[in-house]
Amino acid sequence: MTEILVSEVGPRDGLQSIDRVMPLEAKKRWIAAEAAAGVREIEVGSFVPAALLPQMADTAELVSFAKEIGGLATVTLVPNAKGAQFAAEAGVDAMSIPFSMSETHSIKNVRKDHPAMLEEIAAASSIAREAGIHFSVGLSTAFGCTMEGAVGEDQVVHLAEKAVEAGAQELSLSDTTGYADPAQVRRLVRRVRAAVGEDLLTTLHLHNTRGLGLANVVAGLEEGITTFDASLGGLGGCPFAPGASGNLVTEDLVLMLNSMGLKTGIDLEKLLDVRAIIEEALPGEPLYGFTPDAGPMLDYAERSAA
Amino acid sequence: MTEILVSEVGPRDGLQSIDRVMPLEAKKRWIAAEAAAGVREIEVGSFVPAALLPQMADTAELVSFAKEIGGLATVTLVPNAKGAQFAAEAGVDAMSIPFSMSETHSIKNVRKDHPAMLEEIAAASSIAREAGIHFSVGLSTAFGCTMEGAVGEDQVVHLAEKAVEAGAQELSLSDTTGYADPAQVRRLVRRVRAAVGEDLLTTLHLHNTRGLGLANVVAGLEEGITTFDASLGGLGGCPFAPGASGNLVTEDLVLMLNSMGLKTGIDLEKLLDVRAIIEEALPGEPLYGFTPDAGPMLDYAERSAA
Repeated sequence: MTEILVSEVGPRDGLQSIDRVMPLEAKKRWIAAEAAAGVREIEVGSFVPAALLPQMADTAELVSFAKEIGGLATVTLVPNAKGAQFAAEAGVDAMSIPFSMSETHSIKNVRKDHPAMLEEIAAASSIAREAGIHFSVGLSTAFGCTMEGAVGEDQVVHLAEKAVEAGAQELSLSDTTGYADPAQVRRLVRRVRAAVGEDLLTTLHLHNTRGLGLANVVAGLEEGITTFDASLGGLGGCPFAPGASGNLVTEDLVLMLNSMGLKTGIDLEKLLDVRAIIEEALPGEPLYGFTPDAGPMLDYAERSAA
Repeated sequence: MTEILVSEVGPRDGLQSIDRVMPLEAKKRWIAAEAAAGVREIEVGSFVPAALLPQMADTAELVSFAKEIGGLATVTLVPNAKGAQFAAEAGVDAMSIPFSMSETHSIKNVRKDHPAMLEEIAAASSIAREAGIHFSVGLSTAFGCTMEGAVGEDQVVHLAEKAVEAGAQELSLSDTTGYADPAQVRRLVRRVRAAVGEDLLTTLHLHNTRGLGLANVVAGLEEGITTFDASLGGLGGCPFAPGASGNLVTEDLVLMLNSMGLKTGIDLEKLLDVRAIIEEALPGEPLYGFTPDAGPMLDYAERSAA
């Protein structure tokens, strides 16, 4: 049975996209409950200045908490080398730095062009390497940009190679904008892996802005991708608001993968129960997904044991 | 460029699932507008007794109307040989008869076990053949049944062969219940085609009850399927109500296929405008889809011209 890693990014990608701050205790309950449901990797926060993203101010405390949970890999986002230093001090298992394939987006977002970002990545990767921490680069806007439109595949492949030269041990092809289509996913995954080698871990971070999230997962599976990011309840993205993230919904992803007979190790019923923690901590916050309402198929147990 | 036929089933599958009756003139506007957007096949209604489904009472008039539209194939559902006779008299281009793979569902739904349904199919196909009308059998509940749970793949393959012996010129593998997963779609399509031959047209009728509709389309594309049913606005199915149909949304399907560089011949902007006709004729009726709200990607035109 093929093992698939579903990496939960809700506590970071979900929470940083909404204005309200989830209390630390609720975040802890969320992380603990997902781990108990069988989730083996969670991005718990981001080491950004608290003045910029107060939602992420408790990231170091969450890392300490998550590290105590057996069998769980604790990941944080780091925007730059300074963030990498904080992550190393906190003792994360892995850190991920976003690198926007659209230079317009990169300059607008972090005020760095591509050469400047590559320097930052190299500096951050040195910190990670010295601390023995897994280092991932998120190739954001890899499938298109709301400012530039199309992002050339040649450019993505070239920047992917540069990111590996700068120290990336993992590349996460990220559909930040919900632009990816399944043919593009197959093409770009194949091209990037051909360029950087099959031995380097390539993963997918997909959004569901246009409803193509799971279709793109299928395309990724066809290309041999075995790690996918998702956010519980699709938190933090209204798929009906242009520009919003529309994160892939963890519950639907797990239903699909388990039904296909792929091994995620995640108990769907327990995962569905985790929603109550978010609903209680952030009342009224919209949560998404089809599985929470439709429920699994009658023969779900047979399928997932297949 | 691979040509894909998107077959619109909303005027039948969508409208028969809601209680209100759409006025004939609105149905005509809908059909004409979709044809003008480039849709080449529409299931306009069903030849069932008006006492059972008053929503479908004007099917013969719609067939007359749709036949006058150039380049459009006019399809109707027929539940039995009697319906086939009406369809032949109306002069449809194609008729489709549902054949439930779950015998429990078949008996409950049309009070016929499998042998009785196969007799009905043979009788209907004779009528179609004599009239020179394309004859399709919809293998409903092929991916699972809300009453029986799993429906054996051996059984589906066996009944598919029987349907072809009874005169089917096309088999539509139908996920009536929203149970299909992408691995199952690939497996079942491959097995059915191996059994009945690649020359026989095999198509997919998918639902989106659990959000896997487009993921299952990708699986079907991988297996060489080139015809997919969909319903404008996902009309007639609330994907959040267990047991409801949750039809695949035509707009999202077309966005995905066109973005992939597949040739549907459908103009997405014109298709999106068709929703206004339904909204006006059935005020308050829920319509679904991501594309209507998110809009196409900035580089959509480049992608679809690829």
